[in-house]
Amino acid sequence: MLEIGIFGATGKVGKLLIKEILQCKKSSLTSVFVRNELQYNIPSSVLITKDMKSFLDVSGIIIDFSNKEATENLLQCAFRNPKPLVIGTTGLDKTHFDLIKKCSKKMPLLYSANMSEGIAVLDKITEILSAKLREYDIEITEIHHKHKKDAPSGTALALATTAARVRKLNEESFRFGRNGECERIKDEIGVLSLRGGDVVGRHTVGFYNDGEYLELTHNATSRATFAKGALHAAQWLSKQQNGLYTMQDIFDFKITG
Amino acid sequence: MLEIGIFGATGKVGKLLIKEILQCKKSSLTSVFVRNELQYNIPSSVLITKDMKSFLDVSGIIIDFSNKEATENLLQCAFRNPKPLVIGTTGLDKTHFDLIKKCSKKMPLLYSANMSEGIAVLDKITEILSAKLREYDIEITEIHHKHKKDAPSGTALALATTAARVRKLNEESFRFGRNGECERIKDEIGVLSLRGGDVVGRHTVGFYNDGEYLELTHNATSRATFAKGALHAAQWLSKQQNGLYTMQDIFDFKITG
Amino acid sequence: MLEIGIFGATGKVGKLLIKEILQCKKSSLTSVFVRNELQYNIPSSVLITKDMKSFLDVSGIIIDFSNKEATENLLQCAFRNPKPLVIGTTGLDKTHFDLIKKCSKKMPLLYSANMSEGIAVLDKITEILSAKLREYDIEITEIHHKHKKDAPSGTALALATTAARVRKLNEESFRFGRNGECERIKDEIGVLSLRGGDVVGRHTVGFYNDGEYLELTHNATSRATFAKGALHAAQWLSKQQNGLYTMQDIFDFKITG
Amino acid sequence: MLEIGIFGATGKVGKLLIKEILQCKKSSLTSVFVRNELQYNIPSSVLITKDMKSFLDVSGIIIDFSNKEATENLLQCAFRNPKPLVIGTTGLDKTHFDLIKKCSKKMPLLYSANMSEGIAVLDKITEILSAKLREYDIEITEIHHKHKKDAPSGTALALATTAARVRKLNEESFRFGRNGECERIKDEIGVLSLRGGDVVGRHTVGFYNDGEYLELTHNATSRATFAKGALHAAQWLSKQQNGLYTMQDIFDFKITG
Repeated sequence: MLEIGIFGATGKVGKLLIKEILQCKKSSLTSVFVRNELQYNIPSSVLITKDMKSFLDVSGIIIDFSNKEATENLLQCAFRNPKPLVIGTTGLDKTHFDLIKKCSKKMPLLYSANMSEGIAVLDKITEILSAKLREYDIEITEIHHKHKKDAPSGTALALATTAARVRKLNEESFRFGRNGECERIKDEIGVLSLRGGDVVGRHTVGFYNDGEYLELTHNATSRATFAKGALHAAQWLSKQQNGLYTMQDIFDFKITG
Repeated sequence: MLEIGIFGATGKVGKLLIKEILQCKKSSLTSVFVRNELQYNIPSSVLITKDMKSFLDVSGIIIDFSNKEATENLLQCAFRNPKPLVIGTTGLDKTHFDLIKKCSKKMPLLYSANMSEGIAVLDKITEILSAKLREYDIEITEIHHKHKKDAPSGTALALATTAARVRKLNEESFRFGRNGECERIKDEIGVLSLRGGDVVGRHTVGFYNDGEYLELTHNATSRATFAKGALHAAQWLSKQQNGLYTMQDIFDFKITG
Repeated sequence: MLEIGIFGATGKVGKLLIKEILQCKKSSLTSVFVRNELQYNIPSSVLITKDMKSFLDVSGIIIDFSNKEATENLLQCAFRNPKPLVIGTTGLDKTHFDLIKKCSKKMPLLYSANMSEGIAVLDKITEILSAKLREYDIEITEIHHKHKKDAPSGTALALATTAARVRKLNEESFRFGRNGECERIKDEIGVLSLRGGDVVGRHTVGFYNDGEYLELTHNATSRATFAKGALHAAQWLSKQQNGLYTMQDIFDFKITG
Repeated sequence: MLEIGIFGATGKVGKLLIKEILQCKKSSLTSVFVRNELQYNIPSSVLITKDMKSFLDVSGIIIDFSNKEATENLLQCAFRNPKPLVIGTTGLDKTHFDLIKKCSKKMPLLYSANMSEGIAVLDKITEILSAKLREYDIEITEIHHKHKKDAPSGTALALATTAARVRKLNEESFRFGRNGECERIKDEIGVLSLRGGDVVGRHTVGFYNDGEYLELTHNATSRATFAKGALHAAQWLSKQQNGLYTMQDIFDFKITG
């Protein structure tokens, strides 16, 4: 039985995650770390706390959907009191990633900007095709609901970063819009963001060549998919050794040639 | 029998247009205006000339796919020697549009940045829905081949302009890309351009609301569709009175309410 | 203040409808007709009943999402005790439609197999384009979640019926699949159904010609959109005279030419 | 320099293939086998023949786009006079495939119902995802021009067969349409065909799960892509040992786990 502590339970995904864990027969929710009061009911057996030490002590594994300040704090505490960590917080910067790497030597740690299974798979395919279809132009499009504050989505950036890594390009090759004279160069990756309605999240990675093109689209129909993916990640991570992992590792493609 | 003169026959569409006219039983090609020699054969009965007067004299109606300087010259000559004009040249500016308006008092004149029937229809639907679905967010996406020099396409701009006119917005509401903090405001129209491969042209107008969205996509599978549309426009225009027309007028939607 | 009675409140949409009405400031929920007990709480001011007469008496307008037997019963009672009726029950046959017509002489009655605003608009556009683009081949595709019991969806059939009516075709022109030798004839309308995952509902009406095609896609991102549409329909219907209406009438396109 | 013989040069792809070979610096066209006269000009250095022996003698490698009877004849002759063979003829049955297997022991032989690079890649991804995303429902959709005589396309069937093989299903799991009561079962693969306009060929393989779905679409923008792919296949095959190959082998994915 996986004993899970949730770090950051006031957001949309945190709430759905609690629901998923309570329904899952192989996991139990042991603790929720919140700074303020929870706005909804959870079973009385669950420890609700803002004391990091108690939280870490009762949790067998921790799932984090919070914000960058809170995540930084969590990582520093976990470094001294190691527990397997699943981190889904977005908007992190180099400081956090350095801390994540440091922590991953003392515990199994999985980080992903998008916990959906399908996005992990899309990222893997993007890696394969960026290499195999080297002549093809790559353009990435995403759409999210109108309230999303930033663009492009962390997931679109992660997909573009995967393509760029394979093609030995850097972030300067990303093109976030086009207006005026701007003939496409080979070493360019389009990353275009649409915003509208209440779209949960749709990402398309396109590979374009003379005579043909491929467009690979992932559509999230419900935010529950991120909660399910995080729970799946926790189950998988609990069996791994210390080290840094991503959602892609769960699918364990080994591709050569 | 429609006696057509072609102005600008060295581009991709001009060449296809000659082919369409030669195959059409209701039209004949009487003259081609070119500055340099033609690189391909056309029937000996066709007058090939760089003299504007001879060209205008033998043509019953003129179809123009040239460039802005040549179009300006054509308009000035046609003003003195009026003939029905179909103008498909893109990249025109205010000076040209003023000249077009002036000319249209002395001859029937149809201008469109895109001669395809389907795009004319998409523009009309965009007009209707921008009004009827006033709460919906509008986002326009287009993709063209990697050699296209400018962005967005004239057609995407025309569609965005239609939506903006109905919503009483101006060009400042267009958003050609998104990067960083950029929460969507209501009075904003996304106009996103992708480039890749040899795509002839695909345009999507999306209307997004909470709970549902509509995406209307036009796909040109062949450049011949622009030549066919221009010929269709010429046949229609030859029966009209003096005035300024667009491809939309051919379809004659009258919508109220 | 619109006093609404809900007929059929145990389905997915009925439940969401109650939520929408309770949140709406211009409407109040006066009664719910259910045969069995409700599985969820509603305000104590609402009359929960299985007595048709009481139900009709307290309701200013009725919204029906039930099944064909129940709808038949409702129509027969409403014929004697007329109230404005919004009917969203699907799977009805000729008997029911005859009854609906009969009732609509004594009350305003709106029937639609799909209460979403966007689908009403898509149906209207389908009507326009089936006429204007007479040479284009029409193909309709839909996808719904894997648990949907029948195919095609009532909405896909309604869209196909609209196209067929304009083209003066009948239901025999519908093609629900293709396997083996089956070259397309002009007077044929494809109606293809996909099933998978938990997709709420996506419908595409495609118009295909040599050189270009248009694909118009509606995507429902949440079932709440059907509840919202039904409430919107009720508000509109409450101001209409006796007669039979559809969702299309709400948008009041008047198109000629 | 690859010395290529073309078997079947009167179809659309055969004609484009000649053009590709004549433009390619690493290949030369040595012979064309045709039963009737060619309707277009080719260089006088090329042997045009209906004698199989002469044809095989002068060809270093053969590309076949003919029909099943002609392909059978070619295979029988090549068995006695082995040459590397690229076979793109569709509509073959078990007899032919047995003959293909037999021949491939004496020569390198590549067979594919679709010579496009992108489709080979899509097939490979379909194989990977059918295994990795075992819980996902698989639905395949294709659209081709209105003149296509059969359905589904050979390519759609090949993709469905790949998915079925991985999932240990057989052809009885394919569903070519849905009409009436037909709730989806897990072991079912939708294979839906649309027909319209002049679409060269578009195939979508969809993987649908609760909460998310992936749709992978390949679009051929020009038939030249099939000719280019066949030439690419010939260049690759000329360096292989005897044996039976597919387009997928060119890309050499080795995937485990």
